[in-house]
Amino acid sequence: MIQRIILAGLIFCTSVFAGEPQSLKATRSWVKNNGATILKDFAYLLSMPNVASDRENIRKNAEYIRGLFQKRGFEMQLLEIDGANPIIYGEYNTPGAKRTLCFYVHYDGQPVDSTKWMHGPFEPILYDAAMDAEGKPIPFPEKQTKIDPEWRIYGRSAGDDKAPIMTILNAVDALQSSKIGFTSNIKLFFEGEEEAGSINLKEHLIKNKVLLDDIDIWLFCDGPMHQSRQPQLVFGVRGVTGMEITVYGAIRSLHSGHYGNWAPVPGQSLAHLIASMKDETGKVLVDGFYDTVEPLSEFERLELSKIPDVDIQLKTELGLAFTEGKGRSINERLLLPSLTIKGLSSGNVGKKARNVIPSTATAAIGVRLVKGNDPIDMLDKVEAHIRKQGFHIVYNDPDMETRRKYQKIAKVNRRGSGYIASRTSMEEPNAKAIIDATRKFVGDKLILMPALGGSLPIYLFTDMLQKPAIIIPIANHDNNQHAANENLRIANLWYGIDLMGVIMTMRN
Amino acid sequence: MIQRIILAGLIFCTSVFAGEPQSLKATRSWVKNNGATILKDFAYLLSMPNVASDRENIRKNAEYIRGLFQKRGFEMQLLEIDGANPIIYGEYNTPGAKRTLCFYVHYDGQPVDSTKWMHGPFEPILYDAAMDAEGKPIPFPEKQTKIDPEWRIYGRSAGDDKAPIMTILNAVDALQSSKIGFTSNIKLFFEGEEEAGSINLKEHLIKNKVLLDDIDIWLFCDGPMHQSRQPQLVFGVRGVTGMEITVYGAIRSLHSGHYGNWAPVPGQSLAHLIASMKDETGKVLVDGFYDTVEPLSEFERLELSKIPDVDIQLKTELGLAFTEGKGRSINERLLLPSLTIKGLSSGNVGKKARNVIPSTATAAIGVRLVKGNDPIDMLDKVEAHIRKQGFHIVYNDPDMETRRKYQKIAKVNRRGSGYIASRTSMEEPNAKAIIDATRKFVGDKLILMPALGGSLPIYLFTDMLQKPAIIIPIANHDNNQHAANENLRIANLWYGIDLMGVIMTMRN
Repeated sequence: MIQRIILAGLIFCTSVFAGEPQSLKATRSWVKNNGATILKDFAYLLSMPNVASDRENIRKNAEYIRGLFQKRGFEMQLLEIDGANPIIYGEYNTPGAKRTLCFYVHYDGQPVDSTKWMHGPFEPILYDAAMDAEGKPIPFPEKQTKIDPEWRIYGRSAGDDKAPIMTILNAVDALQSSKIGFTSNIKLFFEGEEEAGSINLKEHLIKNKVLLDDIDIWLFCDGPMHQSRQPQLVFGVRGVTGMEITVYGAIRSLHSGHYGNWAPVPGQSLAHLIASMKDETGKVLVDGFYDTVEPLSEFERLELSKIPDVDIQLKTELGLAFTEGKGRSINERLLLPSLTIKGLSSGNVGKKARNVIPSTATAAIGVRLVKGNDPIDMLDKVEAHIRKQGFHIVYNDPDMETRRKYQKIAKVNRRGSGYIASRTSMEEPNAKAIIDATRKFVGDKLILMPALGGSLPIYLFTDMLQKPAIIIPIANHDNNQHAANENLRIANLWYGIDLMGVIMTMRN
Repeated sequence: MIQRIILAGLIFCTSVFAGEPQSLKATRSWVKNNGATILKDFAYLLSMPNVASDRENIRKNAEYIRGLFQKRGFEMQLLEIDGANPIIYGEYNTPGAKRTLCFYVHYDGQPVDSTKWMHGPFEPILYDAAMDAEGKPIPFPEKQTKIDPEWRIYGRSAGDDKAPIMTILNAVDALQSSKIGFTSNIKLFFEGEEEAGSINLKEHLIKNKVLLDDIDIWLFCDGPMHQSRQPQLVFGVRGVTGMEITVYGAIRSLHSGHYGNWAPVPGQSLAHLIASMKDETGKVLVDGFYDTVEPLSEFERLELSKIPDVDIQLKTELGLAFTEGKGRSINERLLLPSLTIKGLSSGNVGKKARNVIPSTATAAIGVRLVKGNDPIDMLDKVEAHIRKQGFHIVYNDPDMETRRKYQKIAKVNRRGSGYIASRTSMEEPNAKAIIDATRKFVGDKLILMPALGGSLPIYLFTDMLQKPAIIIPIANHDNNQHAANENLRIANLWYGIDLMGVIMTMRN
């Protein structure tokens, strides 16, 4: 999944080739000679419904994909857990290889609301440009047809996340047809429940620890490329946690006339509490909130400073004259923990508003974590802040005795424990090897993003399995992932095949 | 309607007779000899369904009540407006009278949810004590049965607001049977749409101005007595107004991971705004909020200081350890304007909460007004406060240009204009006459309440018609008005008959 911010502007993909990795000739010639077949094969893959809850079709996908790689010499198996969708697992052992790479992909897709799609979500169709850019449907090409890289293929999972499967497959084909060997052992780990919350991922990893133990680095083939269309590698994601806070007035709603100016007003009390948590520039005022943030290295800071600034475009698109953080860029701001109000509720507003002083007011608070933050510790700090504002904290609705005793009462509900952020150092040797190989291919335009703002349970790999993990996005940023009319720009498919070839044959 | 705070404790009604108004002998002997008939007549009146929207039954009530007073020598008519329920209007001219009193009552009652009633809301039934106090149903008494004043009659409008009709009627009967004449001209003005918002009251008053011009004082027979069971006269009510404030973030909900710590958070911004409006002691910080409050006279302040303190009981009942106003009593606090948060809404809380930064946050703000406050001026002051916090105010959802231009945007929606408070001076001669007469009857226990916290459009009488107006409550405070199992304590019916007799024959 890994959604990323999407810009309206279409910036053309610049293809700078600094140096020329050996594999590129092979992948490009492969694409040139087999473009039409690749698109048809991709369309066939996309025509297989793959919503995680659709067990029958999910298994068809799994069997089909297993077969594709088996034919190409991978040792394949489906890793099973009772009641879970299988992991498509594969190995290709390269004699003399000193490194084992594992490609993570998910073959399930987001649920679909067919009524919102221009065509059936599982009836892939080719367009001569993005629908938004007045693209028109065109037939799939014949062998001789020249393929415009700005064409798009529409269908569920085109971007998220079946494209990487096609790119790995065709990179393998290209290398094999050119008789170029891999330089690493290659493993495949394709999940079938990512869009359903990866509920069995942890168990799969624990159960198959022995299989996975020799992996040197995990490559997460998921998510879109940078909005600037520059290629990027991403080294982390934020963690997530949160809580709900309910503050109390009288034991029942009171008539705002008969009691107003005497009875405590929960909405007012909650406003004071929330206001105390963050200043108007967006700085969180909870003691110690930023204390455990693990700083970036000098190298990472340098790379961060090179990332194209998208703030002005984003602000224009989102209708904002103000952002938190005194004008610091979003790239930088997402590397800090955040505290946001996801929801507020007290009484009613609009036509349902009544002349009452409600009995309670509730805020749903979201907390995003960065490397170094522990979810429990961060929520403890928020609780300490609530106490510091004079609140007595309870974990269930207060009884009458408690209500009569404490002037200010807040109920805290930690909704699930959340999970930590993950971040792999850009200077970790395997990560560095990937960076170097990719840079040799795409040049200085390569963006090295320390972490995305969103959250994924990559900590299972980085912290539980103790392995480095990098996200390698391939899809165009405007691929409509999770929405209707999901699509992949053909240029991104070609880019992905090149990139996979480069990584599979890197020598550093 | 005039709901008032209800205490659980049942304090016995003390009947102190300082002096002995001439009429009391008549009303008491009437009650003693005709108690059983009065209860049966009352039950008959309560058996007539009287929800304002039930036009057919409302008219039956009106015709029946008109007939009751016509028989007793009142000149009666139904004042009509197209599409409105009639006003039952009556006159009794007393030769040589120097004053004209008008009794306001409403003969319609609150809508009923029969499923919540112990018996049918229009099947009146007698209990030997309050249901809450383990009272049991008893048959209506025969002529010789001794009637316990703690009995209660249950039925819709028993307290709100058919009891006053019975008390006026029986006071007239008592005086006429004892050949005691009225000392004032008596007018009756019984509304049939009070519980439906008095939507036609203003038009009725304007249309019938000539009929009403000679009225010296309006006596509002509505609402319950003080929670202490001490008799009270009430000289005003608060006015009411309010607004909704919506603050804006991005033009759409944003993923809290991808944008959290950079995008503005409307719930946070709203919290800062609301927190700025009122300090934690409950003092409103809007400039000039208290400036136009018309102070009480020395006499009124003195009377205020004599009102029994109900704060401790209320706080115990409501589960409160804190009240606004640094411990000042509710009696005093309700004499100031109030600003309360009736509702808060942004995104979702609970199971519906999502990992988003919502696009907007809204607060519904209630403002209660006291004598001297103008609704428009008060809302202007709140708007000025919002501006002072740096917000650009709009009255419709902001367009993209506006969003991109202003850092902080608040949409203000004044929901209806509301209306002013009303207060009649305790030193106004007619009001003073009523005070003196009532005090002669009930003694020093008489509570003179400058104003109730709730709102009623009494300003139509005090400010539009420019007449003094006093609320004369009769019903027990625990009469369950507006709820199921509405009831009247028989002692309160007897008290009302005495009081009406006293007022009709007052000589000062």
